[in-house]
Amino acid sequence: MKTIDGSISTPKGFRAQGVACGLKKNGNPDLALVVCDVPASAAGVFTRNLVKGHSLQRTIRLLPSSHVRAVVVNSGNANACVGPQGDADAESMARAVADALGCSSVDVLTGSTGVIGLPLDMDKVSVGARAAVASLEAGAAAGHRAEAAIMTTDLVPKEACAAFDAGGHDVLVAGMAKGSGMIHPDMATMIAVITTDADVSSDFLYGAMRKVADRTFNRVSVDGDTSVCDMCVVLASGLAGNPRITSAASEDGRRLSAALEAVCTTLAREIARDGEGATKLVEVRCEGATSADDAYKVVLAVAKSPLVKTAFFGEDANWGRILTAAGYSGAQFDPRKVDVFLGDLQVCSGGAALPFDEAAAKAILHEREVTATIRLGVGGFSDRIWTCDFSYDYVKINGSYRS
Amino acid sequence: MKTIDGSISTPKGFRAQGVACGLKKNGNPDLALVVCDVPASAAGVFTRNLVKGHSLQRTIRLLPSSHVRAVVVNSGNANACVGPQGDADAESMARAVADALGCSSVDVLTGSTGVIGLPLDMDKVSVGARAAVASLEAGAAAGHRAEAAIMTTDLVPKEACAAFDAGGHDVLVAGMAKGSGMIHPDMATMIAVITTDADVSSDFLYGAMRKVADRTFNRVSVDGDTSVCDMCVVLASGLAGNPRITSAASEDGRRLSAALEAVCTTLAREIARDGEGATKLVEVRCEGATSADDAYKVVLAVAKSPLVKTAFFGEDANWGRILTAAGYSGAQFDPRKVDVFLGDLQVCSGGAALPFDEAAAKAILHEREVTATIRLGVGGFSDRIWTCDFSYDYVKINGSYRS
Repeated sequence: MKTIDGSISTPKGFRAQGVACGLKKNGNPDLALVVCDVPASAAGVFTRNLVKGHSLQRTIRLLPSSHVRAVVVNSGNANACVGPQGDADAESMARAVADALGCSSVDVLTGSTGVIGLPLDMDKVSVGARAAVASLEAGAAAGHRAEAAIMTTDLVPKEACAAFDAGGHDVLVAGMAKGSGMIHPDMATMIAVITTDADVSSDFLYGAMRKVADRTFNRVSVDGDTSVCDMCVVLASGLAGNPRITSAASEDGRRLSAALEAVCTTLAREIARDGEGATKLVEVRCEGATSADDAYKVVLAVAKSPLVKTAFFGEDANWGRILTAAGYSGAQFDPRKVDVFLGDLQVCSGGAALPFDEAAAKAILHEREVTATIRLGVGGFSDRIWTCDFSYDYVKINGSYRS
Repeated sequence: MKTIDGSISTPKGFRAQGVACGLKKNGNPDLALVVCDVPASAAGVFTRNLVKGHSLQRTIRLLPSSHVRAVVVNSGNANACVGPQGDADAESMARAVADALGCSSVDVLTGSTGVIGLPLDMDKVSVGARAAVASLEAGAAAGHRAEAAIMTTDLVPKEACAAFDAGGHDVLVAGMAKGSGMIHPDMATMIAVITTDADVSSDFLYGAMRKVADRTFNRVSVDGDTSVCDMCVVLASGLAGNPRITSAASEDGRRLSAALEAVCTTLAREIARDGEGATKLVEVRCEGATSADDAYKVVLAVAKSPLVKTAFFGEDANWGRILTAAGYSGAQFDPRKVDVFLGDLQVCSGGAALPFDEAAAKAILHEREVTATIRLGVGGFSDRIWTCDFSYDYVKINGSYRS
């Protein structure tokens, strides 16, 4: 398996486009379309928020499927919490694409991201959908334009592409994602679309996507908030020519899972790195927990703590806050056995301060990627999560998001 | 029951002092002492963080008690996570007070707040303790000085005093507290000392304090972090002359509980209002939940959400974030039945946006106190929590706390 340059329209059978239809006040692209030229196997994972956007609810109802033709996603408006009109608008958005494409609307998945509580301007969406269908293209550039059209407060596009061999056939897996606030396990305000030309069963796709999402998108926290629009959908065209993959235990199944995980890991890390206002990517690791659940609780609490995150922003080796967050995480451990590391520098041993070189700590914290490790020393379970620091710009971005 | 001017040295039998012993680099007062001239009934509630500061652990071991003579609290250093030396230092701090006061060190409670992981400078603490004992005074002014000495990033002192009649005797209850970051249910980095001259059993005091803390200090969230030093201790001198209070069901018991709650409510609200970087006090209410636990989950999730809190800072009526936080709180409800209010202005009905006057919303959000109410419409349980907005200054304060 190798990573290659590419986008969601690189795998065989996929075309894409991103257009500006006027939902974003600043005129940026705001409607993305991904089309599969043949009926695609498709699966998805979704936010567990009780409140769900209308476009998202529609997609949840349609998946898994073996005949998806398109995914249309608008940014600039979440199409959430607007009542029955929101459901009708989601259906209209799908129909606009389906009519232009010549397929049924049940084969068109929908997604929306942006402000909650305002009705979609369907005139703009319809015009945009037709324009996107009319200008669909294969090749990496079209996917890049689709990615640009799902971004909200993202500063950089998030794309990845991997290739592997299955039975002598090149199989591609590609993905695009958007962050970048309201990011937390269970999908946050994240939207990701994954495409592959693997010939693969829907069942395999659903199982693999769930497992991979758990290790990647569900291991990112920007601000602890999860949104009402989050989804990751995966479409498989089956055009790579590989022997059909149906079992996770098969060699090809393992390779496909690995490629999927590689793509989603890149996207997940990029989401954390580009968290609203972030100046650095922080990986929080917990080792030596008595259960997987405890390890997860620790990394989650540390990654969510505003005090930890502002200290990372200030490049302040305030490890006491890390230990404190572990302490209230709900995980069971003996504080007198805990070691804490910033990068490779140990700052706490057996729950007590170690004298450490402040300049060395500062240098570690000054890097663009920082790892904090909490060793509980009571068991064999570990976990890790990606997050970012908490800066003035996070406050700035989120103090006036609607304006 | 009425609120009166006063401080923790206003109730009969109490004297106090606050001195600067050099633990704070800026020379501000950093050692507070509260002394009871007779053996006091005392009880406490403490952080549930697994990691606990050494001074705090010592106090937990000593309570409840019927013969407490003093509470000594230093700021500028948490005396936490420094290994066995921390336990020895807490004992030395108590002994310095006990020796100067002429009592046993087991009758002296200890508390510390400040940076984690650095050993206390015991020379400074010993000198400060002796100086504080030598200058003890009754009357409100001394308590004000004690309050000043427990403040860390607090901008304003937090004190309250209430009086009620019990069997023809005036009974006083007073309190002081410090915030102001790492504030969350289960005590956060908060320290509160409550004094009363009520004649009351230790059992009653413990029960009443737990109940009241649950409704006050455990209903404040500044940043979702809970610290390793949090405690609220209550001391009763018994010198008011009232008939001894032993039952929560008695008229006098109810009055004492009400006075205790009034004092702690004032302190809790002041802690939220003075949260690090806060520009306003936000009360989050949930009504119509199917259980008390669900109501609590909703107010907690909303009060913790950085997206909600930055929107309050920006005075942006982004109620979708409030509904979103309720949605991931874990509470069970039907999103189509939810109403949301900012102050008295309804902005969401049945889970969908209501057209509302943005200028009116802005005016409500511009106030120094804002209430957000989520009506779930599925049951009869309610809860409320106090929090604050999330500003640039929160980031500034916490990006470089140790320096």
